[in-house]
Amino acid sequence: MSNIAGYRDDDYIRGKAPMTKREIRILTISLLGIKPGDAVVDIGAGTGGITMEAAYAAAPGIVFAVEAKEAALELVAKNKEHFHADNVEIIKGKAPEALSQITRDVDRVIIGGSGGKIEGLLIWCKERIRSGGRVIANFVTLENAAQATTLMNHYFENVELIQVGISRGEGIGGLTMLKASNPIFIITGDVVK
Amino acid sequence: MSNIAGYRDDDYIRGKAPMTKREIRILTISLLGIKPGDAVVDIGAGTGGITMEAAYAAAPGIVFAVEAKEAALELVAKNKEHFHADNVEIIKGKAPEALSQITRDVDRVIIGGSGGKIEGLLIWCKERIRSGGRVIANFVTLENAAQATTLMNHYFENVELIQVGISRGEGIGGLTMLKASNPIFIITGDVVK
Amino acid sequence: MSNIAGYRDDDYIRGKAPMTKREIRILTISLLGIKPGDAVVDIGAGTGGITMEAAYAAAPGIVFAVEAKEAALELVAKNKEHFHADNVEIIKGKAPEALSQITRDVDRVIIGGSGGKIEGLLIWCKERIRSGGRVIANFVTLENAAQATTLMNHYFENVELIQVGISRGEGIGGLTMLKASNPIFIITGDVVK
Amino acid sequence: MSNIAGYRDDDYIRGKAPMTKREIRILTISLLGIKPGDAVVDIGAGTGGITMEAAYAAAPGIVFAVEAKEAALELVAKNKEHFHADNVEIIKGKAPEALSQITRDVDRVIIGGSGGKIEGLLIWCKERIRSGGRVIANFVTLENAAQATTLMNHYFENVELIQVGISRGEGIGGLTMLKASNPIFIITGDVVK
Repeated sequence: MSNIAGYRDDDYIRGKAPMTKREIRILTISLLGIKPGDAVVDIGAGTGGITMEAAYAAAPGIVFAVEAKEAALELVAKNKEHFHADNVEIIKGKAPEALSQITRDVDRVIIGGSGGKIEGLLIWCKERIRSGGRVIANFVTLENAAQATTLMNHYFENVELIQVGISRGEGIGGLTMLKASNPIFIITGDVVK
Repeated sequence: MSNIAGYRDDDYIRGKAPMTKREIRILTISLLGIKPGDAVVDIGAGTGGITMEAAYAAAPGIVFAVEAKEAALELVAKNKEHFHADNVEIIKGKAPEALSQITRDVDRVIIGGSGGKIEGLLIWCKERIRSGGRVIANFVTLENAAQATTLMNHYFENVELIQVGISRGEGIGGLTMLKASNPIFIITGDVVK
Repeated sequence: MSNIAGYRDDDYIRGKAPMTKREIRILTISLLGIKPGDAVVDIGAGTGGITMEAAYAAAPGIVFAVEAKEAALELVAKNKEHFHADNVEIIKGKAPEALSQITRDVDRVIIGGSGGKIEGLLIWCKERIRSGGRVIANFVTLENAAQATTLMNHYFENVELIQVGISRGEGIGGLTMLKASNPIFIITGDVVK
Repeated sequence: MSNIAGYRDDDYIRGKAPMTKREIRILTISLLGIKPGDAVVDIGAGTGGITMEAAYAAAPGIVFAVEAKEAALELVAKNKEHFHADNVEIIKGKAPEALSQITRDVDRVIIGGSGGKIEGLLIWCKERIRSGGRVIANFVTLENAAQATTLMNHYFENVELIQVGISRGEGIGGLTMLKASNPIFIITGDVVK
């Protein structure tokens, strides 16, 4: 029940860091099930790829984009302007500490980067996500995916994990070469209180 | 700009035939970019997995679900009722012949099964999709994916192919085993007139 | 520098349990680098799929096949006879306890099943694999792969991990459908003393 | 029944062009089933990655390395020297025309690059591979894989296709990120006369 903008990778203002790919953005928002009016937190916003999709899906609700790195914060701000995502509130700082700046309960949380503090993030999610809400976490490393799966099974309900591998056709002399993106682990869990 | 219902596999009334998996349904609707009010054709509706997502995304528009097999037609009808998808019109018959029953122009076409007649389907798409519309085709076989890529590059604009591989975590003794779904080729093309 | 028999899946006498697929067997033996004359331990021999390839590669050396389950032990014995793998010595029992039955140093160890006791297995490997030897571990679960990676980095040198996904073409009406096997994590480490 | 050298990617002298990865080299030689004494043709030798493994497996047999590009020919020559692969004979020119320089029957053929002339290559294989021999072809493009599958089913027996996706663990801050290599199609066929 999510409104998907389906922005293309090229639609974004991008820096040097790799950005979450379009298909992963779509799956993240859809599996998280963001609804219009939701309050969403995007932890580790990076370039703002998922943030902008979340802002579209949550409108007229709010998206808190939490990010610590200066260069990334700048990109999120630029993309916020570029996509007219007025419902994005940028929060500077490292999670979980920076999450104290969010003084209200929320509906959905996206964990795009954990900075090695997964459990602290999940405890915050457990406390501040309303019953019926959901958390989704994307990981590129094996250890974080494994640890988060264990922890999420402890803190949340209906935990599900998928690993997604996307290869993209690239034209080469009239033929279609398959170029692989790095596989991503996506884990979801429901908050039931 | 698509409304994604995000139905779960278990939400459907299913037969013995394998059904398009949830993530593929989400990506198909999102990459196709169905908008509210669109007229959509779903060729080779099968169980109706994608049909129901398309119906949600296109409402109040219409979805024509084209299917030849009796058992599949029955499942589509049951799922139409189950999901209250009143905007689904079931068309019995083999495409491309059965497409003559659709007497209006459409916005989006989903090709879920070609019955070996890809070019006939694409020619129909070229004629009956409005300018600005889009076609998406999902394939499980190498040859159909390759042939469709070549043909779609001939008939449409901005043709893109991805191959999607999803593995799903399955709990086994407190651990998470990765179970692979078969890879799917997804090809999109724009109609520009 | 390994002799690969390249046995086909159908060459084996098989039970109901899934067997390590041919490509994974080949990669396991080749990446482990079994040489003629090596003493090899195959922990969690299962059907004996990898055991038979290891026996071929290690000849005239020996392969200790460690397995706890009665049904699996029977299959290993049958395959030993079927493949004339006289250099396979079957050891009944659970690792790491059962490894005490191996009273000599060895060159290579294959961990095909950990029974949740990875560290105990790796400590045994560290003690009993000669300098210059190597250990390889195959996992189907995320948590075991992550844990083993961490532990192997602690106990061994040059630790490398790959995840292998194989899809097999299956003829269907003159076309080639891709059928995915479950992804396997393969981790190797060198013993340097 | 193949001797696998198992050379590492770093063992090779490499140019700017991407080289067939280690796991694909191992699978190619093993699935082709090169035996000591075999006469092997490696069409589209590129850097010589597979050539060197083939030379190890075929010794004391011969490997004809066919390559048209000057830069690649130089790399093959350098790797031939580096690996002491005296049983490699370099043939300059485009296949299938250049294959006329091979005046003897052969046992195994590796097609690493087709230059768009797959059928010509396969006809040569059909004529010059001895009964009991085998051909293997590796492709990165969808269209070549599909076309080769169709043609190989026409010319050869027991045609099999796999698609191989390898992700490699890369250390990043004490964690293991999965980096995907592009998927490769590997097709084998037997020559029965």
